[in-house]
Amino acid sequence: MYNAPVRDIVFTLNHVAGLEGAIQSGSMGELGPDLVDAILEEAGRFASQEMAPLGEIGDKQGARLIDGKVRSPDGWVDLYKSWREGGWNGLTAPEAFGGQALPHMLNVATLEMWNSASMGFALGPTLTIGAIEALHAHGSEALKAKYLEKLVSGEWTGTMNLTEPHAGSDLGVLKTRAERRDDGTYRIFGQKIYITWGEHDAADNIIHLVLARLPDAPAGTRGISLFLVPKFLVNEDGSLGERNDLFCHSLENKLGIHGSPTCTMIYGDGRYGSEKGAIGWLVGEENKGLACMFTMMNNARLAVGIQGVAVAEAATQKAIAYAKERTQGKAPGWTGQGQSGGMSPIIEHPDVARMLLTMKALTQGSRAICYACAHALDLSHRSADAKSHWEQRAALLTPIAKAFSTDVGVDVASLGIQVHGGMGFIEETGAARYLRDARIAPIYEGTNGIQAIDLVTRKLPLGNGDHVRGFIVELRAIAEAVRLSNKPDLGETAERLVRALDDLTETTEWLLARLAEGKTAEALAGATPYQRLFGLALTGAYLAKGAIAQADDGSELARASLCRFAAENLLSETAALKDRVMTGAASLEAARAALA
Amino acid sequence: MYNAPVRDIVFTLNHVAGLEGAIQSGSMGELGPDLVDAILEEAGRFASQEMAPLGEIGDKQGARLIDGKVRSPDGWVDLYKSWREGGWNGLTAPEAFGGQALPHMLNVATLEMWNSASMGFALGPTLTIGAIEALHAHGSEALKAKYLEKLVSGEWTGTMNLTEPHAGSDLGVLKTRAERRDDGTYRIFGQKIYITWGEHDAADNIIHLVLARLPDAPAGTRGISLFLVPKFLVNEDGSLGERNDLFCHSLENKLGIHGSPTCTMIYGDGRYGSEKGAIGWLVGEENKGLACMFTMMNNARLAVGIQGVAVAEAATQKAIAYAKERTQGKAPGWTGQGQSGGMSPIIEHPDVARMLLTMKALTQGSRAICYACAHALDLSHRSADAKSHWEQRAALLTPIAKAFSTDVGVDVASLGIQVHGGMGFIEETGAARYLRDARIAPIYEGTNGIQAIDLVTRKLPLGNGDHVRGFIVELRAIAEAVRLSNKPDLGETAERLVRALDDLTETTEWLLARLAEGKTAEALAGATPYQRLFGLALTGAYLAKGAIAQADDGSELARASLCRFAAENLLSETAALKDRVMTGAASLEAARAALA
Repeated sequence: MYNAPVRDIVFTLNHVAGLEGAIQSGSMGELGPDLVDAILEEAGRFASQEMAPLGEIGDKQGARLIDGKVRSPDGWVDLYKSWREGGWNGLTAPEAFGGQALPHMLNVATLEMWNSASMGFALGPTLTIGAIEALHAHGSEALKAKYLEKLVSGEWTGTMNLTEPHAGSDLGVLKTRAERRDDGTYRIFGQKIYITWGEHDAADNIIHLVLARLPDAPAGTRGISLFLVPKFLVNEDGSLGERNDLFCHSLENKLGIHGSPTCTMIYGDGRYGSEKGAIGWLVGEENKGLACMFTMMNNARLAVGIQGVAVAEAATQKAIAYAKERTQGKAPGWTGQGQSGGMSPIIEHPDVARMLLTMKALTQGSRAICYACAHALDLSHRSADAKSHWEQRAALLTPIAKAFSTDVGVDVASLGIQVHGGMGFIEETGAARYLRDARIAPIYEGTNGIQAIDLVTRKLPLGNGDHVRGFIVELRAIAEAVRLSNKPDLGETAERLVRALDDLTETTEWLLARLAEGKTAEALAGATPYQRLFGLALTGAYLAKGAIAQADDGSELARASLCRFAAENLLSETAALKDRVMTGAASLEAARAALA
Repeated sequence: MYNAPVRDIVFTLNHVAGLEGAIQSGSMGELGPDLVDAILEEAGRFASQEMAPLGEIGDKQGARLIDGKVRSPDGWVDLYKSWREGGWNGLTAPEAFGGQALPHMLNVATLEMWNSASMGFALGPTLTIGAIEALHAHGSEALKAKYLEKLVSGEWTGTMNLTEPHAGSDLGVLKTRAERRDDGTYRIFGQKIYITWGEHDAADNIIHLVLARLPDAPAGTRGISLFLVPKFLVNEDGSLGERNDLFCHSLENKLGIHGSPTCTMIYGDGRYGSEKGAIGWLVGEENKGLACMFTMMNNARLAVGIQGVAVAEAATQKAIAYAKERTQGKAPGWTGQGQSGGMSPIIEHPDVARMLLTMKALTQGSRAICYACAHALDLSHRSADAKSHWEQRAALLTPIAKAFSTDVGVDVASLGIQVHGGMGFIEETGAARYLRDARIAPIYEGTNGIQAIDLVTRKLPLGNGDHVRGFIVELRAIAEAVRLSNKPDLGETAERLVRALDDLTETTEWLLARLAEGKTAEALAGATPYQRLFGLALTGAYLAKGAIAQADDGSELARASLCRFAAENLLSETAALKDRVMTGAASLEAARAALA
């Protein structure tokens, strides 16, 4: 069973991602280390003890659509209630609406724990957080006054309605339409698919944020507007009124995240209300909906990245526990005896140890990347004098945090099954669930291929390429600090890290040059390998940063030796990735003949 | 829907794996190219048209245990009947018992197609083939006379009963016991788990091959005997007699291969018969059971390898078809217009093309490896003067065929989901099923970690290392032939292949040296990366061999450009793998501190 790694999380926040420094420099307001510890300890307790057991039930039962109503898995309604009463929903929300206005770093750390315990459950609150952010940033005062407090408390939940059957990655072609009414409201008509927690029984109302097109809107993404469309209309006094003209038509039968209802939503077909059309209120300006949506999508991308970390953490814990327990065969050099007829625990076999160490290193690396992204996001709002620097840093790290971490989630969960042998393929064991759950994360909130396009075409050029260059300089300083530390436990970490950063520099410059020459297709052919290269180099750098950090918690050898393992085993991949980026494009275009 | 790639299969058999040459040299008896074509065309038709649609139903319904009986998915009983009436079950079986004694190469090629259509279905016949082989090689004349003909016709099916809860990879600790009876029979008592097709309703009788221990047997693997234990006893005239004392206690709830019943079997608890104990007959000698079982396990490993190829092929086909159909966004340089508002098919996006080409290259590479393994197996029986050479070749290739191909199955199926975007996560689409099915193949029939141990510690030392050295010399000849071919479509293939083979040579010699020094643990720490390195180098070599083969079927450009893509994108990984093999061990041992 999942046991929240609070010590690792606090360590990574403070010593790798920069929370300690940010607190010391005053950027985090009144937040101090003791409060951080207390919050995360309590979140860890809740996630491990209360949420994780219900995560398994959620996977087995799934959300069910019965007579038009979605029924949550047994225990989830109460779980949601006690979770929101614990104040977790409003952690980062504005104080004016009942939130605690804590940094994103804490939000990401707690989200990790919720997702480790139950990704299906954690998705609900994740969407609500996004809705709060979009509404707070773009909604009118009236809308905020009416909706924000109950979204922040979690009494109501929020959703994002983007996708339609023909409009997924490309939202410009969406067809849901909005009609103006004289009273300033709109009527929404259309079908949305893949709506996470679009309908459920855990909250009294559901506030849908829906992208739709006005009749006179320009074509493409510049003609999309964002609307707030509540399930139940809200009276002036805040009480719930009539049912709005929208409903959940069906639930998807998915590979994983079974407890999370993935809904097809129908707006405005006349099932409810006296007049056809779901009543909606404009959020932001007409035809500027996509920009509003991006507010929530960017944070959502980080929130999806942390799902990868979370599943990887849970899968790693489970695999390590199993590998210590299960005995089979005799590992080389094993002399242990005992009740198993001299068989060794499988963790003693070098191949199993390699799998577990790979899982652990990738999990910790991706965690550090996500937390560093949250740190940048926080400082982009809180820094006294370098907001735009941190905005660029958050922008740069977001696609890597999303894509690298979610790929890690899949790979680590798959290795976790392998460690379990035949047991891993049996659903009762629980290892397979992690792979099933993890597999969606590289897809939604912008596929990892889209993230790579974003990274290369929009993020590398920030500051004419100088932002990414400056970042690599910082990473090189870590390698230098490792060299100067002279820790024998770190083996070849410094040299390996320098080589990985050389590969990062070379590919970055190569890509920037292609973009400057207008050779976009060539750059994009290598975007995905580049994204992974960046993630691996960051993994190496952040594990190294943790390994040389001063923290007398007895974890020094473990941190150093894991860092060395990653440097001497995982980082060698960067050379191959560099090769793919810089020479792969030509063969890729030529090879279209093989796909005819 | 799956469409059997008969042309690719025939091409790979003939021009890459050596079937054409073997036919010309007379090793394949009366088999000629026309018969090969006819057999594979008909198998392709059956797999695509009759089996594939029922594969989907099998996944959705699964095998069900109802009142102690296993009920197959709808249509499977008839499917099995028409499949065995087509003569497919006895393809390689001895003619004396009604088989066609055709080469393993044809068996592997047809197995690939059955597994692409439905891995859950194909598992049944796969186990029967193994039982036929073991019985034919080790059974007494009386046993063969009584059982083989109906196993060959498929009227009865066979199983392998190895695993017990505490004995999986390490069979030495199994507890199922066998007692001698005066009439020469034995009574079997015990529980076996993960028994594929251990109980079902598609055949009149099920012939279990069961590993058990005699009371006076030595400890460990030298005290294991193999028994034939039929579900129904067979009278002297071949008719079915009483029910034997064994039954299926439960079915596993698995991640995939839902149509295949995975049974817990109970032997000898007194449910059936007048005396407790399932009646069994010894196969081979007492305490020599493991050697008998290895006869079937070795071929079974190749048969599992081909499952990886098969699922990869089906997943690739599905993804390519989807990527041509689905439009989204505008790929760089896309100028097409049309009904999709100028959106391009997603196959035009470089990232999607990269995924599809990776899928295709890995599928074709692993197919060639499995077919080459089957070729070696055939010549180990049929070659006039080099049987032991081909025995060693088959022995060397078997772990790579099993492990590399099944890893490919998982990776390609996962990429297939990614290509589908959100649709890939929805079960109705069918892409997720391939990942669920594929995930077992790296585990059963010896985990891929066990294959790597076998490859390094048993196969590399064959002929004091000279067998593998000779093989690499052959592979270098392919690289040289590519160089001499001067085909511009092949890009840097020759240089890239030479580099990969250099990596293979270096790591091979390094591992042989470690083994010679008795440093087994160090060698084993790199066994898995070495196994993948070998598989990738073979992928490069075999794709190249195909690319320079003369075959006027219009596929030349496709073959050459895919080969180039693989050489310039996938082969660069070998350097990283070499590094892991040769320097990874030290950091791995040190990093055990991180797993404490």
